[in-house]
Amino acid sequence: MSKGSHVDALINTMLEIAEQILLVARSIDRQQIQGMLDILLEAKRGGKKVMVVGAGRSGLVAKAFAMRLMHLGFNVYVLGETITPAVTEGDIIIAVSGSGTTQIVVSVAEAAKRMGARVIAVTSFPESPLAKISDHVVRIPGRTKVSKEVDYFARQVLGIYEPLAPLGTLFEDAAMVFFDGLVVALMQALNVTEEQMMRRHANIEVP
Amino acid sequence: MSKGSHVDALINTMLEIAEQILLVARSIDRQQIQGMLDILLEAKRGGKKVMVVGAGRSGLVAKAFAMRLMHLGFNVYVLGETITPAVTEGDIIIAVSGSGTTQIVVSVAEAAKRMGARVIAVTSFPESPLAKISDHVVRIPGRTKVSKEVDYFARQVLGIYEPLAPLGTLFEDAAMVFFDGLVVALMQALNVTEEQMMRRHANIEVP
Amino acid sequence: MSKGSHVDALINTMLEIAEQILLVARSIDRQQIQGMLDILLEAKRGGKKVMVVGAGRSGLVAKAFAMRLMHLGFNVYVLGETITPAVTEGDIIIAVSGSGTTQIVVSVAEAAKRMGARVIAVTSFPESPLAKISDHVVRIPGRTKVSKEVDYFARQVLGIYEPLAPLGTLFEDAAMVFFDGLVVALMQALNVTEEQMMRRHANIEVP
Amino acid sequence: MSKGSHVDALINTMLEIAEQILLVARSIDRQQIQGMLDILLEAKRGGKKVMVVGAGRSGLVAKAFAMRLMHLGFNVYVLGETITPAVTEGDIIIAVSGSGTTQIVVSVAEAAKRMGARVIAVTSFPESPLAKISDHVVRIPGRTKVSKEVDYFARQVLGIYEPLAPLGTLFEDAAMVFFDGLVVALMQALNVTEEQMMRRHANIEVP
Repeated sequence: MSKGSHVDALINTMLEIAEQILLVARSIDRQQIQGMLDILLEAKRGGKKVMVVGAGRSGLVAKAFAMRLMHLGFNVYVLGETITPAVTEGDIIIAVSGSGTTQIVVSVAEAAKRMGARVIAVTSFPESPLAKISDHVVRIPGRTKVSKEVDYFARQVLGIYEPLAPLGTLFEDAAMVFFDGLVVALMQALNVTEEQMMRRHANIEVP
Repeated sequence: MSKGSHVDALINTMLEIAEQILLVARSIDRQQIQGMLDILLEAKRGGKKVMVVGAGRSGLVAKAFAMRLMHLGFNVYVLGETITPAVTEGDIIIAVSGSGTTQIVVSVAEAAKRMGARVIAVTSFPESPLAKISDHVVRIPGRTKVSKEVDYFARQVLGIYEPLAPLGTLFEDAAMVFFDGLVVALMQALNVTEEQMMRRHANIEVP
Repeated sequence: MSKGSHVDALINTMLEIAEQILLVARSIDRQQIQGMLDILLEAKRGGKKVMVVGAGRSGLVAKAFAMRLMHLGFNVYVLGETITPAVTEGDIIIAVSGSGTTQIVVSVAEAAKRMGARVIAVTSFPESPLAKISDHVVRIPGRTKVSKEVDYFARQVLGIYEPLAPLGTLFEDAAMVFFDGLVVALMQALNVTEEQMMRRHANIEVP
Repeated sequence: MSKGSHVDALINTMLEIAEQILLVARSIDRQQIQGMLDILLEAKRGGKKVMVVGAGRSGLVAKAFAMRLMHLGFNVYVLGETITPAVTEGDIIIAVSGSGTTQIVVSVAEAAKRMGARVIAVTSFPESPLAKISDHVVRIPGRTKVSKEVDYFARQVLGIYEPLAPLGTLFEDAAMVFFDGLVVALMQALNVTEEQMMRRHANIEVP
């Protein structure tokens, strides 16, 4: 393949991911969003903790959202980080998993339920184990690892279109942008300005 | 504001971010991409280490890329993680900072240069301190924190359009998607299949 | 209580922990140490990966050991960090848990066994769930959280001595020092000098 | 060397480290401890944040202490973790560095001073750059990396005793145990019971 074609692959993948985000923005269930907003706003009013969990790249997306929740004034933690305290009655767990099958994320969600927490699943699969045990589900479509084998079959046997972006990429990027949309919704709902967020933002940034 | 309008804010922000990604995909400098690809491919052939660094959400984006570089078979590390070894002659540092001014990221890049590493900056500002000391720069536009004051003036005094997404969001999300495009370019250049990436992918996923 | 007595409490706790380390050093099972050394040396010769896992402070102790294994030239990873690849046949998992009951550490060890890895448990309880599924156990005594209730009963009802150091401290500190002893044993067995370790040691130290 | 001698090396290193801890416990400056206690108790009463920072293994020791400060009810953060907010006037930074020269730790301490924070250095070298810019210093002796060259000279030329434990081990382990002593002092000063700490302790432990 010529060198330039690799640059084209990069650009085409970016276009593909942008299309996926547009698709999610246009097709996302308004009830699911409103439900998640309501749970988060109620948690904030009630002084409850919000805790995020996810594995791999979904975990990084969850952390990126947790950082913004801190900027918004939430009492937020990342499960597994140093200063994360006990989950208690009424806390909110946001569990991010494209496939909804990541074993340890499901175990964590189950444990949180036993502690009296409410679990919000952000996943592509509303029928997945994670979604089934959750109190609220937001569906973000994406070709996740679970649909992988199907796609492989579809591509090889049926000649169906296969995305450029590998593995969970489409879900992860769409989830990142979904959460960033949720941040703006929360800014408006809580009447928090960007200036206020900036003041909470880490002023000693350590990699 | 009515409740529904917060859902609209979320959707409009997703559309805005998707537009930003499309803009970056269409305007990105092909030479800059080709240069970064060449450096990474040369590092891989020469058995050199690739190390990523970034603070805050830019650091999370850098980690998401590092995970994929591992899937692609690179000898990759995140500066600051437990098993990251010494930087040595010929290693590649990928430094991610929208503003290009994050103090500690600049310090790390400078230190890496002294060890004989080559630094690639991924930033919105080719004139920033980070970009200036780097061997190669890829510019990803975005309203970053540096341009914040300008925007504030523009909005308040000149009535110019202000994006919904706060702080560094536009840069961070565009950089995430840029790196995901780069992953596909590297898959093609190295002839790595998704199946091979899956085999390297963590099979015990711990949050 | 007078102010000075808090300083005394600090000093007495340090003395208590030092006594615990002396106790562990004098009573530790030589066969268990030799077995762990043999497994690690065989893994290194066979090019296998060594992966560490632990929750909370035990996880930090595991990371401190992983850092030294990197200095010693091992192919070592921390489960859950960004660039940790798939566990494969013959890899070694070092699981650290005082009580041996930490749910997710046990789950990870079980999953690793299914991938064909060998598990070494470092724990106070050779009859714990973690120890039972492990291929090799090194017992480090310590008042761990499991023995907590017993101690409480012993103290309140029987008037038996209760250590100053709370929760898992005695185990965690003794395990930290045990691993640091193991580092010296590995230096000698592999003929690695401190100068060689220094050369691999991160030269750009990021918090 | 015979196999058994590696086991002896492990045990002898544990004894050496225990001796170092006893030495530190017996020689530590009571004024320095009292000063650190006073600063921490005042921060707690005043609702100020306590933030820890350290690189490499010193950073892990700092995190182990931060976890206990959370159990004690402090408003504590690890610089660089996801939900760490801005440093503000009156906050306390605990910077851990055996040599007191770790560049980025010194930079962070300087930045924190500019934000109006007070810096406590825990280091072996009261004349080090870190100690010099700090408001309070606690000296924990240890053969740190800085004294390395001296030791090398002493060992080679003067035949002086060289510890078994490599690099910063003696400092790191003594600092870990010092902080654990400080935890007990704080328990007494604040009248916090182990049962209360257990209730704050993470009940979903994620590696």
